[in-house]
Amino acid sequence: MNTPLYRQLAEHYLSAIQSGTLRPGERMPSVRRLMQQHEVSLSTALQLCRWLEAQGWLEARPRSGYFIRTPRRLTVLAPAAEPATVRQIDPAQYVGIHEKVSAIIAKGQRKVSVNLARATGAPELYPHQQLRQLATSLLRQHPTLLTKAISPGGNPELRAALAKRALDVGISTAASEVVITHGCIEALNLALRAVAHPGDVIAVESPTFYGLLQVLESLGLKALEIPTSPHTGISIEALELAMQTYPNIKAVVVVPHLQNPLGSIMPDSHKQRLLHLCEQHQIPLIEDDSYSALTNGDKIPTAIKHWDKTGNVIYCASLHKIIAPGLRIGWMLAGRWQARVSMFKYAQTRYNEELSQRMMASFLQSTHYERHMRRLRQHLQQQRDKMAEAVAAYFPPETRLSMPDGGVSLWVEMPPECSSQAVFDAALERDILISPGLLYSNSNRFDHFLRINCGAPYSDKLDDAMRTLGHIIANQQKRRAA
Amino acid sequence: MNTPLYRQLAEHYLSAIQSGTLRPGERMPSVRRLMQQHEVSLSTALQLCRWLEAQGWLEARPRSGYFIRTPRRLTVLAPAAEPATVRQIDPAQYVGIHEKVSAIIAKGQRKVSVNLARATGAPELYPHQQLRQLATSLLRQHPTLLTKAISPGGNPELRAALAKRALDVGISTAASEVVITHGCIEALNLALRAVAHPGDVIAVESPTFYGLLQVLESLGLKALEIPTSPHTGISIEALELAMQTYPNIKAVVVVPHLQNPLGSIMPDSHKQRLLHLCEQHQIPLIEDDSYSALTNGDKIPTAIKHWDKTGNVIYCASLHKIIAPGLRIGWMLAGRWQARVSMFKYAQTRYNEELSQRMMASFLQSTHYERHMRRLRQHLQQQRDKMAEAVAAYFPPETRLSMPDGGVSLWVEMPPECSSQAVFDAALERDILISPGLLYSNSNRFDHFLRINCGAPYSDKLDDAMRTLGHIIANQQKRRAA
Repeated sequence: MNTPLYRQLAEHYLSAIQSGTLRPGERMPSVRRLMQQHEVSLSTALQLCRWLEAQGWLEARPRSGYFIRTPRRLTVLAPAAEPATVRQIDPAQYVGIHEKVSAIIAKGQRKVSVNLARATGAPELYPHQQLRQLATSLLRQHPTLLTKAISPGGNPELRAALAKRALDVGISTAASEVVITHGCIEALNLALRAVAHPGDVIAVESPTFYGLLQVLESLGLKALEIPTSPHTGISIEALELAMQTYPNIKAVVVVPHLQNPLGSIMPDSHKQRLLHLCEQHQIPLIEDDSYSALTNGDKIPTAIKHWDKTGNVIYCASLHKIIAPGLRIGWMLAGRWQARVSMFKYAQTRYNEELSQRMMASFLQSTHYERHMRRLRQHLQQQRDKMAEAVAAYFPPETRLSMPDGGVSLWVEMPPECSSQAVFDAALERDILISPGLLYSNSNRFDHFLRINCGAPYSDKLDDAMRTLGHIIANQQKRRAA
Repeated sequence: MNTPLYRQLAEHYLSAIQSGTLRPGERMPSVRRLMQQHEVSLSTALQLCRWLEAQGWLEARPRSGYFIRTPRRLTVLAPAAEPATVRQIDPAQYVGIHEKVSAIIAKGQRKVSVNLARATGAPELYPHQQLRQLATSLLRQHPTLLTKAISPGGNPELRAALAKRALDVGISTAASEVVITHGCIEALNLALRAVAHPGDVIAVESPTFYGLLQVLESLGLKALEIPTSPHTGISIEALELAMQTYPNIKAVVVVPHLQNPLGSIMPDSHKQRLLHLCEQHQIPLIEDDSYSALTNGDKIPTAIKHWDKTGNVIYCASLHKIIAPGLRIGWMLAGRWQARVSMFKYAQTRYNEELSQRMMASFLQSTHYERHMRRLRQHLQQQRDKMAEAVAAYFPPETRLSMPDGGVSLWVEMPPECSSQAVFDAALERDILISPGLLYSNSNRFDHFLRINCGAPYSDKLDDAMRTLGHIIANQQKRRAA
């Protein structure tokens, strides 16, 4: 593909910034100036500025235009290390992960001053006003919406709206294929129950979302942790090796976009290799794609399901990370397992409540959706930048961090002496809740990592919390090194 | 226990009615008159009349007092037969029940003129106005309710309100023991997953709600059908025999009150025998109690869980049959399996949406609840009576029917020549949806039964539908007998 014009121009200005020709705090040429100088359209000039802004090189100041940003102090930190793909793969049954997680969650139940353990944005970043209005008007239009038995199969308008949204990630599907679930977590449960039986082995990314490990444990499945790059996602080589070694892998579960907790995005070529590898070994591929709409910029990455011609991919996603954390609307496209998944869904929890389904259908169909998503991505990007700057400023210099291209969190590698459990406990004493790395694997491999939420607008309070966290980590490092 | 005074007096009037001393259409002595004549309090006199009304002997006419009702033509029908408890018990794995059910449900998906297949009341019988107001005011009070991440563990007020409601059925529990689920169906799933593994045998009532058979099939469990009386519920003798014969029964599931589809209510002595039998064999007892609040009159039957001292009973219930069919709020008390069930719930679907939980909490705490329940029970009783009269009037004389003491349906035994599948198909052609008996067992034992919904106010349209249904059944009977 040809590089679009705006990107060519953007690269030109980028090198001007990097070489110091344009210096931090200086004003970027105005949009009008750019149009004249390069003889380009308004849209191209705007795209140019927005792209540089999205990459963190410009900042927009109200009524003054774009300015070159102060270089992020983040650059002082080393990026995340690649995993050793040759290391021994350990097929561990996750008996116990739930207890580990429960203990952490139970401790974190008490009201804290700053909660950095969440995996969603702050409530104010979501369209609460529009949703409230939608709820009120739906209840006015349908007086017995709350007291009428839910019609079977899921709300047709929501299924149609989701089928349309699937086009954003390159999936062409019919509304009738969409199964609505209670969150993405129910979709994962149904997908795993459809393809595996207790005792079977499931290949997962390492580190991975502890919620998935709990699902596996609760279904009596064994997790096989596959090394995963913080930049390009699951290691295809390591997975291939695992498939050759373990004959009883019954599914592979990946989060190809903004992996939780790594934030990695798989290159399209990797996705296709993964798809073919799974097809070749006749192993179902479960794609958890709850975060892709939170990727920086306006281009949402393409789902693996896009290339799936045999129905071997079960696509799972949800709306609570992107529209309404207070609603539990997930959805899935189950490929070859459509009938089985629909049966399990019916037998497990029946259908989702009508009001929530209709709210989401109306919102997705409205012009609010795109506008909200654009704003949410921008907010999250600013917040991630601020949080990353705080990590760079307050955490020990041995800290490692790669900036994800979107999402609601940072995956921070502390100096190797640190224990996330100890940091968790110490932070909780200071009324700060974090998500310790030890939750993200059954091994202790990630015990010196933290997942830090970037969902809330940066504030003095957050800044204080990050400074406190930095002190805690530095103290630990010293004490343990001593 | 002594018979309360109002009951003694009621029995007195009852024999006057039955002997013809008080005749249909005549006025019952006024409340004031009753007070004077028997020297009783207003409350006793009122209780007397209400009890006779609840039993179907009196009807209240606005501003005129109570009148003796026209005797139900229902009495022309034979009551339901008791099952043969000595028959061979068949341990059938329900592979296929879902397909049978799915096919029926799929056929019934199209819009019909009269839907008699539901297991809820008409939307208008539920407090839609109050719920709408609650929703609107909750959204006003908590502007980010829909966009805020759901706090873990279920809403504390709802859990407290349900713990309080549990007192109605004689259960004393703490709010912290209450697990909120997506409907009773999720509660049953969690209960079964907590106590059994694929391949295990579960003893169930026969006939039983097809939803339960589907749950068993989807979890790879085998159903063992135990003969169940239309009047007193599961046969304890048959169950005891089964426990001696099959060593791998891992749970017993019963609906002790207003069993679906039979409508039977277990006598307290049976409940206690069942409890002891299960304890003795160390088999968990799962009590599905979604209907008990729909029992005629103001005394709700006592749950089996009331007598449970060892935590061997898992109590499951829901609010959508009694308050809001459009919401999916179920709940459970998992006894010994509390921790395991909580873990499964978290891993399976996380927590229910906050808005629905808070709506239900507020409603249960309000004075609306008791008033609504009283009205709902009265409405349902009138509707059941009307429907039963229609069965007596329009169905062949060989039809058998026992009136249940509450609930939303009638379990009608057609002449033995009839097939519920054929009646289902013929009725659907006439735009009437019924629930065929063949769904309620994996055997064909109940193929000449229908479950008929009584949730909607009786109307000319309903009357026409019942007449049509009567014709269909009579035609079938003739054709098959020929």
